[in-house]
Amino acid sequence: MRDVAVIGIGLTKFGELWDKSFRNLIAEAGSKAILDSGISGKEIDALYVGSMSAGRFIGQEHVGALVADSSGFAHMHIPSIRVESADASGGLAFRQGYFSVASGMNDIVVIGGVEKMTDVIGAEATDTLATSLDQEWEAFFGSTLAGTYAMIATKHMHDYGTTREQLAQVAVKNHANGALNPYAQFKRPISLENVLKAPMEAYPLTMMDCSPVSDGAAALVLCAAEKAKKYTDKPIKIIGSGQASDTLPLHGRKNICIFESTVYAAKMAYKQAGIKPKDVDVVEVHDSYTIGEILAIEDLGFVKKGEGGKAVENKITTFDGEIPVNPSGGLKAKGHPLGATGVAQIAEIVMQLRGEADKRQIKNAKIGLAHNVGGAGATCLVHILEAM
Amino acid sequence: MRDVAVIGIGLTKFGELWDKSFRNLIAEAGSKAILDSGISGKEIDALYVGSMSAGRFIGQEHVGALVADSSGFAHMHIPSIRVESADASGGLAFRQGYFSVASGMNDIVVIGGVEKMTDVIGAEATDTLATSLDQEWEAFFGSTLAGTYAMIATKHMHDYGTTREQLAQVAVKNHANGALNPYAQFKRPISLENVLKAPMEAYPLTMMDCSPVSDGAAALVLCAAEKAKKYTDKPIKIIGSGQASDTLPLHGRKNICIFESTVYAAKMAYKQAGIKPKDVDVVEVHDSYTIGEILAIEDLGFVKKGEGGKAVENKITTFDGEIPVNPSGGLKAKGHPLGATGVAQIAEIVMQLRGEADKRQIKNAKIGLAHNVGGAGATCLVHILEAM
Repeated sequence: MRDVAVIGIGLTKFGELWDKSFRNLIAEAGSKAILDSGISGKEIDALYVGSMSAGRFIGQEHVGALVADSSGFAHMHIPSIRVESADASGGLAFRQGYFSVASGMNDIVVIGGVEKMTDVIGAEATDTLATSLDQEWEAFFGSTLAGTYAMIATKHMHDYGTTREQLAQVAVKNHANGALNPYAQFKRPISLENVLKAPMEAYPLTMMDCSPVSDGAAALVLCAAEKAKKYTDKPIKIIGSGQASDTLPLHGRKNICIFESTVYAAKMAYKQAGIKPKDVDVVEVHDSYTIGEILAIEDLGFVKKGEGGKAVENKITTFDGEIPVNPSGGLKAKGHPLGATGVAQIAEIVMQLRGEADKRQIKNAKIGLAHNVGGAGATCLVHILEAM
Repeated sequence: MRDVAVIGIGLTKFGELWDKSFRNLIAEAGSKAILDSGISGKEIDALYVGSMSAGRFIGQEHVGALVADSSGFAHMHIPSIRVESADASGGLAFRQGYFSVASGMNDIVVIGGVEKMTDVIGAEATDTLATSLDQEWEAFFGSTLAGTYAMIATKHMHDYGTTREQLAQVAVKNHANGALNPYAQFKRPISLENVLKAPMEAYPLTMMDCSPVSDGAAALVLCAAEKAKKYTDKPIKIIGSGQASDTLPLHGRKNICIFESTVYAAKMAYKQAGIKPKDVDVVEVHDSYTIGEILAIEDLGFVKKGEGGKAVENKITTFDGEIPVNPSGGLKAKGHPLGATGVAQIAEIVMQLRGEADKRQIKNAKIGLAHNVGGAGATCLVHILEAM
């Protein structure tokens, strides 16, 4: 396996983008990434696209072909591969594309992630989010994704003394960060009271503990590291990649407060990178619900199991904290267009490691980690990147 | 890149399987393949699964996680990758898994393909098939997949003098073959009249020119070729793999009677294999509609463009013909559970090259080719295999 670097990034704004269709979004992100990288279209060997549920959201499967076509690559016959692992689809696309370059099969690939969620009525989005759970054992009986995370949160509160205020502080921090991110869906800081007094979604999670329904796309250009300097002065090397599964329904797990998929994916990525959690300078984690960020910092090894709530309260995950988490605003404030999220997380890490994150720049960030979860933790992807 | 071999195959019966769910089907095919290969579950490095639209058919996305879970691999944290390219999803899963072993990343992977189509009412299946077309430019205006192939058929008849009888003969041949296949959905021979007098689906295609709505699953075990003899006396080596895109809507193409995705994918696979079309002994092609088989034998180079209809009439594609096509019964008679099809095609080729195809065995078959198309040709996968 050879080294691979990210040489280009492209993002659309995330939000309720009534004037932009699925194909507009991915074409915009893709062309920005290609322009940023300085490659020409002819150099692209393959496209890898993550999208969770275009079939249900916009009546479109055959997503790889759509992306190749709307980006102008169909006439060039470039292979296009769509992958899906619920809201970890973006991270999965990244890993598949990374492997294809690391193996020498491809030299240059474009990774895309995209979702257009706002063309359906509210309950339909909730129903489609629940397709990331076990349909026969959970969704069929009325479980929602928020309800499932709420059960985990309740257990975490019971077992470790985590408080509703600590959960809410995740949202407060991420909104403060998102306010500095030009691509974020929500650019306004919020108070602890805003979160606690918002309508209850599923106890203990209020609407403000939940990431929003979003449209958006993100793209990256990957290149064999040995050729990366030809295109950019600031290639960002992929030094670790991990993927792991856990049971799809919660009832199969030994302890619902541990995402074993995160634990195993992280172990794999840390091992490949030859680093420990303390070596990481900046992190993007999957906070589709505030409890998700608390689980993540525990399962990734930044704090001990059960101490995530306190860590947030003690502000070790803020910009100036020991381990800055979600400088982008996270899924909560940046927005969560499902398939786009995993790719956008890595784009944020690349900006941080390039030193181009402007007002939300983490000082001296050399190593960054992105953590992308599918549904309630049945799939996890962890990637670690480093400035070259 | 190192050589890779198929060391195990598993198929469910295809058909309207009211008593089997999506997870039952893939678990059955997967465990048959694993048993056939002689590996133990612990040796599996990753799962690759092709499924077109579980989200719409059964309300389940996060398909990779479901498959890992229902096959008992979730507790082992084995990474599971779901890919989608409409009804070429199975071929795409095969290619991704093949690459992962060829590159040295994985040693042993299981490839699955699965679809459960019969749990929805008729029109919903038609609508979901149309998600393989361009939603904004075709499906939204009422185009169906059958209607799109019907336009191609009409043009082929106009340009090359292909007749309705020649189209119908594809179905007659494939039903004759399917009658010999224990896994086939339809095991009865039909007459030319049966096809021509069936209800019209979209002129010139009658219901009997169209593949059915099916449930089913297929699975394969892949292993590095150097280790394959440890598990089986009859490993079947992958000697060529190709994938190519074409425009998603028909209106973008120079000539709708040519699937350029097939032409380019085949060129790539033949080049890697170092063979020419005349070297192939047995072929499985994507006859979702009878015209599809005629296009395929032309675009794969077995006959010249425009001569596919005559070739069928002259019986060069029957068991005893020059180039036997679809000994399994093809999608028409074997059934077409979308994501399963591409994997099942390769399972048929493996049976043929092992000499285990029983009553439908092609004599002295040494090299076989599988051709899997997404929708109306925007994606194509071609694989070539050889007995070791």
